[in-house]
Amino acid sequence: MAGPLLPAVNRQILLRRRPVGAPAADDFSSVDSPVPAPREGEVLRRTIYLSLDPYMRGRMNETRSYAPPVALGEVMVGGTVSEVIESRHPAFAAGDLILGSDGWQQCAASTPRGLRKLDPRAAPISTALGVLGMPGLTAYVGLLDIGQPKSGETVVVSAASGAVGSVVGQIARLKGCRAVGIAGSREKCDYVVSELRFDAAVDYKTSSVLRPGRDGLERVSFSDLVSALRDACPNGIDVYFDNVGGTVLAAALSVINRGARIPLCGLIAHYNATEPPHGPNLGPLIVNRALARGFLVNDHFDRFSAFLKEGGAWVQSGELRYQEDIVDGLEAAPEAFIGLLEGRNFGKLLVRVSPDPTRLA
Amino acid sequence: MAGPLLPAVNRQILLRRRPVGAPAADDFSSVDSPVPAPREGEVLRRTIYLSLDPYMRGRMNETRSYAPPVALGEVMVGGTVSEVIESRHPAFAAGDLILGSDGWQQCAASTPRGLRKLDPRAAPISTALGVLGMPGLTAYVGLLDIGQPKSGETVVVSAASGAVGSVVGQIARLKGCRAVGIAGSREKCDYVVSELRFDAAVDYKTSSVLRPGRDGLERVSFSDLVSALRDACPNGIDVYFDNVGGTVLAAALSVINRGARIPLCGLIAHYNATEPPHGPNLGPLIVNRALARGFLVNDHFDRFSAFLKEGGAWVQSGELRYQEDIVDGLEAAPEAFIGLLEGRNFGKLLVRVSPDPTRLA
Repeated sequence: MAGPLLPAVNRQILLRRRPVGAPAADDFSSVDSPVPAPREGEVLRRTIYLSLDPYMRGRMNETRSYAPPVALGEVMVGGTVSEVIESRHPAFAAGDLILGSDGWQQCAASTPRGLRKLDPRAAPISTALGVLGMPGLTAYVGLLDIGQPKSGETVVVSAASGAVGSVVGQIARLKGCRAVGIAGSREKCDYVVSELRFDAAVDYKTSSVLRPGRDGLERVSFSDLVSALRDACPNGIDVYFDNVGGTVLAAALSVINRGARIPLCGLIAHYNATEPPHGPNLGPLIVNRALARGFLVNDHFDRFSAFLKEGGAWVQSGELRYQEDIVDGLEAAPEAFIGLLEGRNFGKLLVRVSPDPTRLA
Repeated sequence: MAGPLLPAVNRQILLRRRPVGAPAADDFSSVDSPVPAPREGEVLRRTIYLSLDPYMRGRMNETRSYAPPVALGEVMVGGTVSEVIESRHPAFAAGDLILGSDGWQQCAASTPRGLRKLDPRAAPISTALGVLGMPGLTAYVGLLDIGQPKSGETVVVSAASGAVGSVVGQIARLKGCRAVGIAGSREKCDYVVSELRFDAAVDYKTSSVLRPGRDGLERVSFSDLVSALRDACPNGIDVYFDNVGGTVLAAALSVINRGARIPLCGLIAHYNATEPPHGPNLGPLIVNRALARGFLVNDHFDRFSAFLKEGGAWVQSGELRYQEDIVDGLEAAPEAFIGLLEGRNFGKLLVRVSPDPTRLA
């Protein structure tokens, strides 16, 4: 094992300019700062691995979402695995390997708040930034706690060869589900099926499906993404774990089953967008940990008696008011219905087909 | 009380043609059929009230959603309140008032399956099609069971003067919430605030807010719907009960609070559309009673130890595989990050900032 290597300077990469659309190289700048000297209670470490993740694009914008933006001229944020070079804190010693969030720089010094020691014998230390780190935990809670897959169900995940998606599909398989990945190249789809052992992979760029066939992998092309997804998911989609948004989300939504669950994890397809997306922007659902749930009253008739009891009392007491928009004669129904769809009615629209004997008294 | 009136013929309104876009009057046709004669065990009734509801637009299409379409040449479906004219079933007698679903016609005969007797002393019989019927139940379960409002929260509902929306806002108030309605005219907004006693109403056509002021109702105009909603909801939106979809849903989503709940009840704005909406179509969420839930891993760190235990064992056993895409040197970070957003990486993207001592052994 090599000893701690102290760099001569602390190279840092800063946010120089807020990108418009896709980030460009000169949105960043590089500076060489002095290596910080640890004060009493602090730990000095050198970065070994810096994690790069899509969420960082959001931090480059001026607007706050769930976390404050990186200020201009500041070091870009990011998770890091580091080696302690010098410790002035009793709980750490030179040579310790630690997980932290020191960002895009070569060294850092601070109190150990937020640092976690890593055991290199348990797993390669780099995994603390990936499969056994934040991306792995994201997959784990998003799939198991939010998606709640049941054995035998079909789980589909986008960005399937990525840090989160690759874990989602594999855990789905481990839990007895059919796992289908969506990825953006033949090579990634191949990896997803061959190496990660998903049941099938869909290439969203070519609308083709890759799956184990009689003689090795079989690839079938379809006219559109929805057809490819239907082929890869003959029993429909029970859990769609979304990392990307955009057209992939739209296609997956049209293949969901009754009672499907859709953990919304990321919207990579939108991160570089300069205009708000067409249609409902689901970004606020993620930022706000919000839940959108479709429902049909037909499933809830067991609540009718509770409603009639409570609602009937409210109507009687005048606490629950209502307005009826009554048109007369069955012949008036078509025009009234056409107006309803245009919002021309005012209150509950009814056709009085014949006299109401209870109102003739 | 007038006695049963038997019409000479049974006028029926049929679906003549499937509409393209908004329905037109000649998508319907009218025929006069003989009044049916009740057989043993059947009940003959005349329709008093026929309910017209937005869901009927979906039944006019060829595609099945959650219910089969109306066949061409068939009587349009619909909920009805009727009076029994002749009963050949022991549980019913002439003069009984019943709730059924006889559709767009003047009379019907059938066994009493699906019929429910109404007590005209409990509430006006027409309310069985509105405030105390399916629309009322929809509001009740959608708000209370799906939306789960807590006292003090802000509940916003679209189509607020309609059969469902008017009940949603009033129940929200009864449960101690701030109720804000969205409607499409000054008159409807006025009704929502004055008569239904919502805390405020937003006119989505003029982006103006109506609310109780010092001298009666106060109306303030804004530059866009989002600004109007922010004004009407100074504490944000905790529950958005959506009846309409489209631009109103998009605007409401941008004002939701953390942990917001969004019962998706209807998409009136889309029902007459001839092209699929831009962006994700949330219709399948409704048809499939599906749940979309945004989440952030930051809220789930309590699951880290469970994940590390289970995930660590999977990695050790080879059941959970991973791929790392490692680029060397901090200077490579910007380009690697730019590529990540374009999907150029393959597996978890890491920057090796300095040598990994555990891999030098």
